[in-house]
Amino acid sequence: MGDPAGVSPELTAKLLAMPAVQEAASILVVGDRRILEAGERIAKARAPIGEVFHRGQTVRLAPGKPALLDLESLDPTQIAPGKASAAGGRFAMENFRAALTLAREGAVDAICFTPFNKAALKLAGNPYNDELHFAADVLQYGGPCSEFNILDGLWNARVTSHVPLSRVAGLLSVGAIVDALVLTDACVRQAGVARPRIAVAGLNPHAGDGGNFGREEIDVIEPAVAGARARQIHADGPFPADTVFVRAQRGDYDAVLTMYHDQGQIAMKLLGFERGVTLLGGLPVPILTPAHGTAYDIAGKGKADATATHRAFMHASAMGRAKAKENEAA
Amino acid sequence: MGDPAGVSPELTAKLLAMPAVQEAASILVVGDRRILEAGERIAKARAPIGEVFHRGQTVRLAPGKPALLDLESLDPTQIAPGKASAAGGRFAMENFRAALTLAREGAVDAICFTPFNKAALKLAGNPYNDELHFAADVLQYGGPCSEFNILDGLWNARVTSHVPLSRVAGLLSVGAIVDALVLTDACVRQAGVARPRIAVAGLNPHAGDGGNFGREEIDVIEPAVAGARARQIHADGPFPADTVFVRAQRGDYDAVLTMYHDQGQIAMKLLGFERGVTLLGGLPVPILTPAHGTAYDIAGKGKADATATHRAFMHASAMGRAKAKENEAA
Repeated sequence: MGDPAGVSPELTAKLLAMPAVQEAASILVVGDRRILEAGERIAKARAPIGEVFHRGQTVRLAPGKPALLDLESLDPTQIAPGKASAAGGRFAMENFRAALTLAREGAVDAICFTPFNKAALKLAGNPYNDELHFAADVLQYGGPCSEFNILDGLWNARVTSHVPLSRVAGLLSVGAIVDALVLTDACVRQAGVARPRIAVAGLNPHAGDGGNFGREEIDVIEPAVAGARARQIHADGPFPADTVFVRAQRGDYDAVLTMYHDQGQIAMKLLGFERGVTLLGGLPVPILTPAHGTAYDIAGKGKADATATHRAFMHASAMGRAKAKENEAA
Repeated sequence: MGDPAGVSPELTAKLLAMPAVQEAASILVVGDRRILEAGERIAKARAPIGEVFHRGQTVRLAPGKPALLDLESLDPTQIAPGKASAAGGRFAMENFRAALTLAREGAVDAICFTPFNKAALKLAGNPYNDELHFAADVLQYGGPCSEFNILDGLWNARVTSHVPLSRVAGLLSVGAIVDALVLTDACVRQAGVARPRIAVAGLNPHAGDGGNFGREEIDVIEPAVAGARARQIHADGPFPADTVFVRAQRGDYDAVLTMYHDQGQIAMKLLGFERGVTLLGGLPVPILTPAHGTAYDIAGKGKADATATHRAFMHASAMGRAKAKENEAA
């Protein structure tokens, strides 16, 4: 359960009320029963709950009605709808930490969370810039991991993320791009695409126009694409950034690897990424969340659309199953 | 008339055959009668031509049938459809130069050209990186000018263009951004919008997130927006680059000023910029062209869609009229 002042409680209730959701996985809801019940009232949806676990109890999941880990941590009367608070941020952060801890112990195969609020997390003393680093730390994972954005079957991964634009070129290297391609290939496969086709964006206008407007394509990106292909990864490019999404959108590619944050985000947001899903990929468990935020402006009104949450959940279910199979095979 | 090996000849014929075009302006076609006739045959369209001028004659334009400046420079049998050639590049370049020379002499108020081919221009020895610098030189104009992209009433201008991404941050200054806003405001007004609303994009992810991911928003872009507002320009921002086009597209703004090439081009191409129009703005005459290229793959087949050419022409007509009025008033 994510931030309690936004649409998260009603999204959780709506999601759990969907019959297909209960059939897709053995579910554990992590949060507080009172917040979930408040979400049910807002959503006018009944979230069936089976077994209830409490702090300190060993969690064992089975098919059937979703179980609840009731941390009894937050009284809904403490929360004003549409307002970021330390209490709300703490609730979301502690739920996430509990889910990650269960994952580290092998009790869960995937995590799906409803939206967090960055301001609330900050008020609660969250020291992390993003959920990816929070998750990697709790999972005690030091390997390559990355945020992926997924919309209608189109994936976007990026080599650099929350850094000043002036630093992007200096952060690109053959190794970093090959790593990103290997990770993208693995994650898209895990989601069920047998042989992912990945388009790689250039860095400069017109992908450098043969070196006229920058040499990173020639010196760094082309060798990285060749390196990935040598590892049997279907990677093409570098393509000019202003046509790569046009190609991908018409179905030529399953994923686009962009060199920096806005190169992908400009395109994905225009394509309707509010309906999309974000994956924290490469970690020991797949972690998914709807791409939209806490929507404080419509919180508590029962208007929240659970489509993206449902997609995030179904991805978590499919990828968690694939991950569990991988682990069994290993 | 643009590159003769692409769709330019058929587009010219289709455009001239439209009755509304003839009524919108006193037209001079610059090129070669034989190439135009070849275009008519391909397009199965009749381009009405009135007076014909030859090299060295004084051109005088009047309402009615389009006039032709027949430079008698190219025999169509010299040109293979769909193939870039020095002869084709020379033809396009000389037509453009002749039109610009007439503009400099005050004989025309606006220029519209059908697509050029960069490879052909290069083969013909064109020393310019883009049409903007070619035009400024022939017009002997040294003031501020810029390329604008226009799609369905949405304008995009940029502060930097064909430079390596690593150089963008260093090229931004308060003065450069204010100049770009002044120019954008003037051009959109000239196209008939009384009080243009301009959204300004940030440079860094999340527009720098309050300085966390770069300081250009705080140090350069915000002061520039304030400076433009002090000059009665309706400028807002800086907005995160990944949401600014979502805002503009829903109608909140007439124009978006982006800091670099792909910031705008990624969005405009996804929105269908092939149907759009490019303006070389700020010069003594407005110069317009369809956004798409020479389309060598469908050249000579009569399939070319003249919608964007028609839009470019109608913008040229409206902006040329406004410019002529300004000149009279001055």
